[in-house]
Amino acid sequence: MKYDKKELLKEKIQHIDIKKFNSIPLIESFDNMAFQSRNLAKACKIYDTMIKDKDCTIVLCLAGSLVSGGLKKIIIDLIEHNMIDIIVSTGAIVVDQDFFEGLGFNHYRGFVNADDNQLRELMIDRIYDTFIDEGDLRVCDMTTKKIADSMNPGVYSSREFIYDMGKYLDKNGKNPESFVLEAYKNEVPIFCPAFSDSSAGFGLVFHQTEKKEHVSIDSVKDFKELTELKVKSKETGLLMIGGGVPKNFVQDTVVAADILGVDVPMHKYAVQLTVADERDGALSGSTLKEANSWGKVDSGFEQMVFGEATVTFPLLASYAHHKGSWKDRKAKRLNTLLK
Amino acid sequence: MKYDKKELLKEKIQHIDIKKFNSIPLIESFDNMAFQSRNLAKACKIYDTMIKDKDCTIVLCLAGSLVSGGLKKIIIDLIEHNMIDIIVSTGAIVVDQDFFEGLGFNHYRGFVNADDNQLRELMIDRIYDTFIDEGDLRVCDMTTKKIADSMNPGVYSSREFIYDMGKYLDKNGKNPESFVLEAYKNEVPIFCPAFSDSSAGFGLVFHQTEKKEHVSIDSVKDFKELTELKVKSKETGLLMIGGGVPKNFVQDTVVAADILGVDVPMHKYAVQLTVADERDGALSGSTLKEANSWGKVDSGFEQMVFGEATVTFPLLASYAHHKGSWKDRKAKRLNTLLK
Amino acid sequence: MKYDKKELLKEKIQHIDIKKFNSIPLIESFDNMAFQSRNLAKACKIYDTMIKDKDCTIVLCLAGSLVSGGLKKIIIDLIEHNMIDIIVSTGAIVVDQDFFEGLGFNHYRGFVNADDNQLRELMIDRIYDTFIDEGDLRVCDMTTKKIADSMNPGVYSSREFIYDMGKYLDKNGKNPESFVLEAYKNEVPIFCPAFSDSSAGFGLVFHQTEKKEHVSIDSVKDFKELTELKVKSKETGLLMIGGGVPKNFVQDTVVAADILGVDVPMHKYAVQLTVADERDGALSGSTLKEANSWGKVDSGFEQMVFGEATVTFPLLASYAHHKGSWKDRKAKRLNTLLK
Amino acid sequence: MKYDKKELLKEKIQHIDIKKFNSIPLIESFDNMAFQSRNLAKACKIYDTMIKDKDCTIVLCLAGSLVSGGLKKIIIDLIEHNMIDIIVSTGAIVVDQDFFEGLGFNHYRGFVNADDNQLRELMIDRIYDTFIDEGDLRVCDMTTKKIADSMNPGVYSSREFIYDMGKYLDKNGKNPESFVLEAYKNEVPIFCPAFSDSSAGFGLVFHQTEKKEHVSIDSVKDFKELTELKVKSKETGLLMIGGGVPKNFVQDTVVAADILGVDVPMHKYAVQLTVADERDGALSGSTLKEANSWGKVDSGFEQMVFGEATVTFPLLASYAHHKGSWKDRKAKRLNTLLK
Repeated sequence: MKYDKKELLKEKIQHIDIKKFNSIPLIESFDNMAFQSRNLAKACKIYDTMIKDKDCTIVLCLAGSLVSGGLKKIIIDLIEHNMIDIIVSTGAIVVDQDFFEGLGFNHYRGFVNADDNQLRELMIDRIYDTFIDEGDLRVCDMTTKKIADSMNPGVYSSREFIYDMGKYLDKNGKNPESFVLEAYKNEVPIFCPAFSDSSAGFGLVFHQTEKKEHVSIDSVKDFKELTELKVKSKETGLLMIGGGVPKNFVQDTVVAADILGVDVPMHKYAVQLTVADERDGALSGSTLKEANSWGKVDSGFEQMVFGEATVTFPLLASYAHHKGSWKDRKAKRLNTLLK
Repeated sequence: MKYDKKELLKEKIQHIDIKKFNSIPLIESFDNMAFQSRNLAKACKIYDTMIKDKDCTIVLCLAGSLVSGGLKKIIIDLIEHNMIDIIVSTGAIVVDQDFFEGLGFNHYRGFVNADDNQLRELMIDRIYDTFIDEGDLRVCDMTTKKIADSMNPGVYSSREFIYDMGKYLDKNGKNPESFVLEAYKNEVPIFCPAFSDSSAGFGLVFHQTEKKEHVSIDSVKDFKELTELKVKSKETGLLMIGGGVPKNFVQDTVVAADILGVDVPMHKYAVQLTVADERDGALSGSTLKEANSWGKVDSGFEQMVFGEATVTFPLLASYAHHKGSWKDRKAKRLNTLLK
Repeated sequence: MKYDKKELLKEKIQHIDIKKFNSIPLIESFDNMAFQSRNLAKACKIYDTMIKDKDCTIVLCLAGSLVSGGLKKIIIDLIEHNMIDIIVSTGAIVVDQDFFEGLGFNHYRGFVNADDNQLRELMIDRIYDTFIDEGDLRVCDMTTKKIADSMNPGVYSSREFIYDMGKYLDKNGKNPESFVLEAYKNEVPIFCPAFSDSSAGFGLVFHQTEKKEHVSIDSVKDFKELTELKVKSKETGLLMIGGGVPKNFVQDTVVAADILGVDVPMHKYAVQLTVADERDGALSGSTLKEANSWGKVDSGFEQMVFGEATVTFPLLASYAHHKGSWKDRKAKRLNTLLK
Repeated sequence: MKYDKKELLKEKIQHIDIKKFNSIPLIESFDNMAFQSRNLAKACKIYDTMIKDKDCTIVLCLAGSLVSGGLKKIIIDLIEHNMIDIIVSTGAIVVDQDFFEGLGFNHYRGFVNADDNQLRELMIDRIYDTFIDEGDLRVCDMTTKKIADSMNPGVYSSREFIYDMGKYLDKNGKNPESFVLEAYKNEVPIFCPAFSDSSAGFGLVFHQTEKKEHVSIDSVKDFKELTELKVKSKETGLLMIGGGVPKNFVQDTVVAADILGVDVPMHKYAVQLTVADERDGALSGSTLKEANSWGKVDSGFEQMVFGEATVTFPLLASYAHHKGSWKDRKAKRLNTLLK
């Protein structure tokens, strides 16, 4: 059967709105059950405790295909309602997926058992059951080049570059639903420790190839800035969706502060939604108790939930949103501390 | 730290009530997303289609620690609202967990990192994060012996024995919330192809040891009866929670009918909620498309959802319940066909 | 592309021979490493200790598509070299896969991304990447009917029936490489607690449909017999490939003995090779430490290995074989105790 | 029970030597079996084909706790025998684990169910079943600072920095078994796209905090350099252990080249050893067929193997080593192209 590109790119992924359903009754039932339902309930309660704790700076860590999966609006809502203060993410989520949609492009409902050869010929990229028009992605790549071209040559943190991406969307965006834009407006810093591993990497490589005097992205600067924010926070809590570099990077700030001679507490709260398993010794699935041996995450308020994020994250975020503890919480606007 | 048995067995597992929250808005959002949220939405829609299809006999397959995990009331609700017609289950769910609770016993909230040596000394059994009083389990074992003792010696299907367990609960039960009881009242047949692999196994071994003339459980008889029900159904749909023997057993009825010379259609609908993976070649994680090669499950209306059942099953069942398609569906009371 | 049945059923699965490679150097290296390599090394050493322990009866538990996966010869070797004394298995491994090959049929190298619709039309059944001629399977089904027809009507344990299957192969088999045959010759009992959930189920249903006086398979009798063997063993050790019913069934014999008033020790040794995860609360992935809380498995000599059995089982079995501790071990011929 | 630090840090992790056992007979058996054994055999054959293909540049991608897990010597052997040409890795493997051991420190056999609170008090860090002396790690952090201090201020790729780490080990190392050192000597470039997410991050943050004129690590430069190597290679093959950033980063070079206006072929060969699952839509578990839709990985010579790397990587590497195809292969010394 021959594919028709238009047919394949017809049904847009739509982002779930946690304000439109209230998961509190469900989560409260889960709390009296067992296995992952109870773990999820415990994670929800820990996140709500973080929000209530006035001293706590909340870091949202993002890995996986979360925005293409329909979770973008949740991140926007968490920013808007002061439920998180910092984002640490993979580059793909920030650039290829969120910024990409901010430029007016979309992800599309596809299917798993696709003929990938045919997709390639049509310039359609597949993420499991989701399709992307590769032409759109190329525009996204080039836009990051344009942004780099417009900046003063020099060394930047990914946070600084992403800030400029927000500014770009504010002026030129075609879809106001973008967490890069929302974070920009609310001065929520976004860090991508592996920034060039994204659509922006393409744009920046092109930029550096063209210009002798150019923009560089120094992830050490990111680490320094994030550590600075850790130092300036009385307490910290981690809300981790997936594992990977973001999970490790933010945990390491405790050690980094220590090395700089500043005595900071471990991360007091930590929640991770993941499908990874601890048995291969890799970081993504390593338990939060293990992180305690490293002096990174305190024991007492930590919970891992084994489950895929498109199912578990909406339940957790809806719970926290409807609990309303954010109503007494102020925007920390941490970007302003880093200028 | 020394454990105190009373302290450990204090908080009862409570069963989630799908009538008290409406997952339709959530599932409808999931349908426009990706990955497992969309798969779950598709599974919900297929299950609703089964319920609407007047010709379809619906078989619920159960594996895993579902009742100890807080999912018992869902199964009761599905029976009560004519949303399923047959149950195929592991023995543990039917006897050790549901019948056990029908006798007035409970499962308790425990914790994962328990000192299992101490638990053993206190005669507390652990299922991941859940505790059981082993003394209670022994009473359950002995009750199945009592039931066997009261029956005429002979060869029975597990279905027949479980029917008598329902009758026993009807007279002597201490907790009306039992799906064994509910199925008994509604003439919903329950099959356990590996029946002696359960608390009833203990009672029956004791029974057979004591009595020369005794009750035997012939799973061939179960297979014959289940195949008979398949033959008498115009169409069939499978709602599988977990994999294991129940998944395989019910799929095999298509072939069994064929061998008996009756031409029956494949199972028209099939949904499986599971954490198993196809990559080890085992049946539990084998895809429903693979089952198509065997001529067991039709293609078109089949969906696997990767997720742990205490989270996904309540969402699916609440969706189907609130859709209300069951209102036009009549109880099939299939037990009456087998008498 | 249209499939050609002959082309698809050309390359036979060949069974690995643990005598032809020596995994000892590899396993000894693994012992000084980490994660699953070290776990596998520990499992190997525990299994070797079981073999050395003269008082220990060793039970091999089998679940998953092990014989179709190429592991049949290992099981035969373990029997032949007195490295196991009892087998508890799923029905499919015993009947659909091993007995099936004993009749002269084969499994074939296939591929994962097959068009299952086309396979169905060609009567080819798929197990992940492996193909089976459904016509051959039907002959296997009918052979079990023939065996049942030849037996005196009455109630049998699966062990008794499988013994007759061995006898049948001894007379009529077309491929001497069958562990059902090898176990028959060496008086190693084989138990299938869910026996009708197999190709034999088809034959037996046909048999019972035809004959009023017929053979029944009572798994309670299996449980009684297996418990008897547990009672008669000074110590016991479990070598579990996969989880499912076999894992639970054999663990339960400790409790069954207790209920019959006999004080038996817990299983002293336990090894499980599995890809299952403990986090869903199901039995297959439940830790052996958890089994300790139930008083079923002793602590000290227990090890789970996370890995797929076609890779891990050959390494473990080759290690134990080349260690040679079996040379001082005698065949227990436990079937003779049950006659 | 109170822990004793000396007791806990006694047994060193030892690295497996693929030259000391020959996995060819095992892998050849695997090739006629099914499931992951056959997949592993196929992966071995593809890797051997890469080595034979004179036009092929081979990129080794590393993620997970591979060196602490005992796989260091394999990587050294692959470099030494010209079996790989480029390494793309997480920072932890390069700095915290390999460079760390090059400085004379060790990883130790620990255990999983450790009391992490006590470990923290003793300054022992845990990776699943492995222990590390945090004091040693701090020395490692500071050594990277020292290296940064010794460099001319400016913007570097991680590759350049790691080259200087190799040079440092060459002069000051205490253990010649280090792949950073071996790569340095053989001019094999090592890229860490998320370099500051490692022990080096600590040292570099300290360095930047102290010095106004300092070293920056620009991962765009890494991307540019790696793309340059892709452009200069006729064909490329990927040997991926784990997923994460390295997997994505190297795949993206095909697109990066295209964006720079150079027409390069897709990666012709690709092998991935992983425990990740495709069903969550994340990159780590995404199939190599999916990568084909992106125009990154060619179809035909690609294979994923589901299994934990400490078991599967030694088997694959031993196979390729004993096949000996490397004997006709020359060192590419690609670092020299980037100077």
